[in-house]
Amino acid sequence: MRVFLPDLAPFRDLTLEGVTPVYYSRDALPEGGADGFVLWFLPEAQRRDLLSRPGLKWVLTLTAGIDHVVNDLPDGVQLFNAHALHDRAVAQHALALVLAAGRGLHRFRDAQHARRWERAGAMYTLEGRHVVVWGFGHIGRLLEGMLLPLGATVAGLTSRSTPDDVNAALASADDLVLLLPRTPATRHILNADRLARLPRHAWVYNLGRGELIDPDALLHALQDDALGGAALDVTAPEPLPQSSPLWTQPNVIVTPHVGSTTDDLIRRGAAYTARFVEAVRTGVDVPDPVQTDRGY
Amino acid sequence: MRVFLPDLAPFRDLTLEGVTPVYYSRDALPEGGADGFVLWFLPEAQRRDLLSRPGLKWVLTLTAGIDHVVNDLPDGVQLFNAHALHDRAVAQHALALVLAAGRGLHRFRDAQHARRWERAGAMYTLEGRHVVVWGFGHIGRLLEGMLLPLGATVAGLTSRSTPDDVNAALASADDLVLLLPRTPATRHILNADRLARLPRHAWVYNLGRGELIDPDALLHALQDDALGGAALDVTAPEPLPQSSPLWTQPNVIVTPHVGSTTDDLIRRGAAYTARFVEAVRTGVDVPDPVQTDRGY
Repeated sequence: MRVFLPDLAPFRDLTLEGVTPVYYSRDALPEGGADGFVLWFLPEAQRRDLLSRPGLKWVLTLTAGIDHVVNDLPDGVQLFNAHALHDRAVAQHALALVLAAGRGLHRFRDAQHARRWERAGAMYTLEGRHVVVWGFGHIGRLLEGMLLPLGATVAGLTSRSTPDDVNAALASADDLVLLLPRTPATRHILNADRLARLPRHAWVYNLGRGELIDPDALLHALQDDALGGAALDVTAPEPLPQSSPLWTQPNVIVTPHVGSTTDDLIRRGAAYTARFVEAVRTGVDVPDPVQTDRGY
Repeated sequence: MRVFLPDLAPFRDLTLEGVTPVYYSRDALPEGGADGFVLWFLPEAQRRDLLSRPGLKWVLTLTAGIDHVVNDLPDGVQLFNAHALHDRAVAQHALALVLAAGRGLHRFRDAQHARRWERAGAMYTLEGRHVVVWGFGHIGRLLEGMLLPLGATVAGLTSRSTPDDVNAALASADDLVLLLPRTPATRHILNADRLARLPRHAWVYNLGRGELIDPDALLHALQDDALGGAALDVTAPEPLPQSSPLWTQPNVIVTPHVGSTTDDLIRRGAAYTARFVEAVRTGVDVPDPVQTDRGY
């Protein structure tokens, strides 16, 4: 079994029984085809090139999202993602942002720059706070388990929630955490109408995809004091353009799409790859492929 | 029963059966004595004045710490604190700081100021991280319950821990959270020798009292890259002087002694006072007084 693998030390160090590793990098794509393709950060042109190679039976993207692959996936090729690599980090990044907002850490950081010992601004704990998680899957359930010991209540919205469910949940939310995937149906799903249903003190957290939020509507809600604040780990486009007014809007926290980043992610990705390839080779414990018709 | 109460609306609004409320503020101290004194932010001179009034039987300080009261407490006067008002907020503030350090929120805030979408710097989750809580009481146990769902392990040190226990715990700590009270025995308890026992990547969090840390030793450890970082909610003195190099040291996060602050704290303090005064009046469910000989 020939498998395209990233040309990185943790992958070079793997011993994979019955596998002929074929390493790729953005600067050096291999010749010929392969049975499998383990995809890890690769620009679009090179990604498309490898996806079009003959004989490809499966693709493992070491990401949780699949929106960068699904449109270029040849018919009959199975796609697998690696959400388990990322779920806990994203849940903890979300919790970090929700707590940072409540404890005013962004304001205190600004004050620290000015050497000011200054207590101004809203401060709360998560006790009694109602958190609505829109896109309630693996990450959402982990996040719920982290929020409950802090005294928060949690409700989840999914793709099966009705418009009435959504509207009722938004009206009740102190915090709204977006974890939805990027699909045609989720583009600007948080628009001006839905933003207006949130309480004025509510914070919005986006750790899904930038396209989930209508950026003009978000900016207007913030400027009108119709929203408590927003913490954005994803934006559209990325990087967030230097000209974006969101950089400097009060009570906006920007992190550069690092929700799933940990220093040991490549090493964990290589270990995950070894387990996955062994499962495919032996046919034992192969994960379920992504249902690409759902778009996530 | 005459009781000195803060001259604040939530206390004015209380209906206290069998109690003659006597309101005080820093600008207007009442005449005469009282049976009880509910203490809420008052400068030292005014605090001493009310503590010396005739007939005083008990003092309720609406703080967790008692170091501002204990030296001026007349013999035979019982002292009560109100740690339950503060425990959860301090635990959540500690969790916010531990997560902020791991997720690099302080660096990303700095990058946001410069409109930079920049991923540099260490990033981790709390999974597998070992957190040592020095001063393992109510707050520490709450914090433990919040850390375990994140995959961290937690160990506690108390005043009964031996020097060997302390040294072994420090050597094992990825994160060291200081929650000790201020007593003669805890002054500079985190000194150069003990800082040197921590792993180089470890972070120190101080939510106890500023005097717990030798500030010169801390600064040297940070400057020598012998410590991952420090998050300080308390300093000595407070406010942290403008001239302190800690303000600008990389990987130092300063918050202005707000660990227990919430917007509804005064209201919660008034409700706590009502329950407390009723317990004293009826003699039912009176909390245990502080053992002032322990100093906390």
